[in-house]
Amino acid sequence: MRKVLIIGAGRSASSLIRYMIDHAPSEDWRLTVADKDIAHVRSVIGQGSEVAEAVAFDATDGSLRARLIEAHDLVISMLPPSLHLGVVRDCLRIGRHAITPSYVPDEMWSLDAEAKTRGLVLLNELGLDPGIDHMSAMRILDRIRAEGGRMMAFESYCGGLIAPESDTNPWGYKFTWNPRNVVLAGQGGMARYIKDGEYKYVPYHKLFQRTVRIAVPHYGAYDGYANRDSLRYRRHYGLDEVPTLVRGTLRKAGFCTAWDVFVQLGCTDDSFIMELPKNATWQDFLMAFLPHDVERGPRENLAHYLGLDPKGEIMAKLEWLGLFGRGRIQDPQRSPAAILQSLLEEKWQLLPGDRDMVVMWHRFRYTVDDRQLELQASLVSEGESEQHTAMSRTVGLPVAIAAKLVLNGQIAQRGVLMPIAEEIYAPVLHELEDLGIRFLEEELEA
Amino acid sequence: MRKVLIIGAGRSASSLIRYMIDHAPSEDWRLTVADKDIAHVRSVIGQGSEVAEAVAFDATDGSLRARLIEAHDLVISMLPPSLHLGVVRDCLRIGRHAITPSYVPDEMWSLDAEAKTRGLVLLNELGLDPGIDHMSAMRILDRIRAEGGRMMAFESYCGGLIAPESDTNPWGYKFTWNPRNVVLAGQGGMARYIKDGEYKYVPYHKLFQRTVRIAVPHYGAYDGYANRDSLRYRRHYGLDEVPTLVRGTLRKAGFCTAWDVFVQLGCTDDSFIMELPKNATWQDFLMAFLPHDVERGPRENLAHYLGLDPKGEIMAKLEWLGLFGRGRIQDPQRSPAAILQSLLEEKWQLLPGDRDMVVMWHRFRYTVDDRQLELQASLVSEGESEQHTAMSRTVGLPVAIAAKLVLNGQIAQRGVLMPIAEEIYAPVLHELEDLGIRFLEEELEA
Repeated sequence: MRKVLIIGAGRSASSLIRYMIDHAPSEDWRLTVADKDIAHVRSVIGQGSEVAEAVAFDATDGSLRARLIEAHDLVISMLPPSLHLGVVRDCLRIGRHAITPSYVPDEMWSLDAEAKTRGLVLLNELGLDPGIDHMSAMRILDRIRAEGGRMMAFESYCGGLIAPESDTNPWGYKFTWNPRNVVLAGQGGMARYIKDGEYKYVPYHKLFQRTVRIAVPHYGAYDGYANRDSLRYRRHYGLDEVPTLVRGTLRKAGFCTAWDVFVQLGCTDDSFIMELPKNATWQDFLMAFLPHDVERGPRENLAHYLGLDPKGEIMAKLEWLGLFGRGRIQDPQRSPAAILQSLLEEKWQLLPGDRDMVVMWHRFRYTVDDRQLELQASLVSEGESEQHTAMSRTVGLPVAIAAKLVLNGQIAQRGVLMPIAEEIYAPVLHELEDLGIRFLEEELEA
Repeated sequence: MRKVLIIGAGRSASSLIRYMIDHAPSEDWRLTVADKDIAHVRSVIGQGSEVAEAVAFDATDGSLRARLIEAHDLVISMLPPSLHLGVVRDCLRIGRHAITPSYVPDEMWSLDAEAKTRGLVLLNELGLDPGIDHMSAMRILDRIRAEGGRMMAFESYCGGLIAPESDTNPWGYKFTWNPRNVVLAGQGGMARYIKDGEYKYVPYHKLFQRTVRIAVPHYGAYDGYANRDSLRYRRHYGLDEVPTLVRGTLRKAGFCTAWDVFVQLGCTDDSFIMELPKNATWQDFLMAFLPHDVERGPRENLAHYLGLDPKGEIMAKLEWLGLFGRGRIQDPQRSPAAILQSLLEEKWQLLPGDRDMVVMWHRFRYTVDDRQLELQASLVSEGESEQHTAMSRTVGLPVAIAAKLVLNGQIAQRGVLMPIAEEIYAPVLHELEDLGIRFLEEELEA
């Protein structure tokens, strides 16, 4: 019998927990699911209580954490990203393997040497993005290299979106994930990428203007904006010399130019509390970011200020949000970003029956001998239900499959790991395909 | 005999020290000037060594600081703003009056009650901006109120610029003050002001576009952009109900739209180190912020990207800086802001004989009975020499005059003070006028 501890049972853990319960009898697993909300854990475990136990867990209780880790063979942390490091440090000290879906924090690399010495797997970046992006990219990159190809460009975009039949508003967007992160997206520093050998830096206020249009087979047109950190992938992917490398986020076509209105106005600023009157309306909120103009009404003022077509799609999207209206703001004594978020949470909320969708798209350009080749790979995965969303499945299932590999001794590497070696990505991607999470590849001669 | 300690003998202290030395015999003062660079202090004191002593001072040596403070009747801190609070705390503990030219840091207000109890003057914001702005505004505001006027608008702008005959480059600007602060200006958070009763918030990337044109009598046209903190003045100025209040910074007309190019591109970002090659040129620097464009050269690419007239004034200003050229960047492994600063320090440097100039401009709109009145007050002060710059005189002389008032018992108030009461502003402004620092007033019936 192998004992697995899952810490954190939030939204992204549902599909992981179901997989672990489903496989527990055949794999001879016993599971402990620890979360601060034990009632929620019990509901997630459901019929699985023969193999899975719910435990109340307080992330600030270090001694409970250590005792739990000690009693298991493998630890999966599904906590918020900032809390993984403490768990992984304990695992190293106590001598247990660990898996997280999140980015390796810089400080974690210092654990690598000791983890190798102690024969431990500390495996990270095993969700969707990071996770499936790494694995799917590395599978194709290794294949191209094996064919003698020389990489000229790698472009990769991913987005958490809404399934076509649930896409019922003019923005083509609903919140399927942390709304605050969506409102603040892009504010972590200038986006950086490399294009035909030139470094490119894009400030936040240009980010949603400098998008690329991407056609995803069978799903239509999307816009991609660059992520902050494209360059850090060069080393991991063995692409130190690649002339073009960009990673970004996908939104439905047309979203970004409309979202850019909020960026230009300053409505996504989270650094200060606005001094709006207590009974302020959405129009008052908008007006606070517009130049003083006694001639023009709010619509004309905005269109003139930002050079928008007064009868165009962007204005229609803003109109639909009620931004020109006299609706009252619930709590106007907040930051612009928090006020905007409260409006969007109402307008972009998932309705009963709505299903989410994740989209990932890669483009590889390379040369073999004298031929210039291009390969596009795209993944579209729609949510199964309100609990087993596309996000939960694509984040949780890679973690679950990797847990099985670790427990069955099928991973030879030791230390702080990312899923970039074939021994990890090949079996994980293979099993994800069986679970319906598969990439469509299209090869072109350029 | 009264003993005065001046801590810090940097650029802005020259005129202060000269005034104190000149007045020492008649006022029976003995001066100690403490600075880390004692040779520099000696050169500033010059012929004044009969009344003034130079002392080597290390700002991290708290016990030396306390001993120095103890041996004097009044302490003037001309240190960098972040260092005033430690000095003022010591003054309160030891029981000495203190004067600084800088903004009252929030933490200093907590010293107010004790300073009142102990009968001490802790007087701040006594330079140019803050300083002369407060005093000149309050003198006029008090007069308007005495006439029964009701304030409708107060607008106030100030800039550290270059005298007309030293204005020899297309930007109309040279560094007369801290270059880093000029490059980063406006990045401290959204600018906030109130206009006709509406709160207005301007993000950094719109700040240099939303300027106002200001005509200063005999000196021509300037552009003003809003400062971050206009609203905090309402209380101090007794303008809680005023429908329009804005404070800002002045630049020569045309400067702001050209500077905005750097803001739009992201060249003023100070948050990360660029990955430019070691032999990178200014054109490479520029290109890193432009979209990839194989059709257009750098000039055309920039003009197209930001919608600039390819043959216009803005492009001419950028051309003059050498931004499209093949000149090598000395040390390209720095932040965009630091790289840009190094170019500007070379191009915008003061030449021998150049004189600086400070410009301040206020506009008061108010009603008396049924008449709508407008009053404009402007101050232009040109530098006297390379040592006694306009900045040094307008920052240091108010401090010096206030020191005389404190020492002669002419200030009745106690506690943490700003120069907004008549007992301070009236004699300080009066003596500044004798020293050639005077406002021109123009009254209009609107």
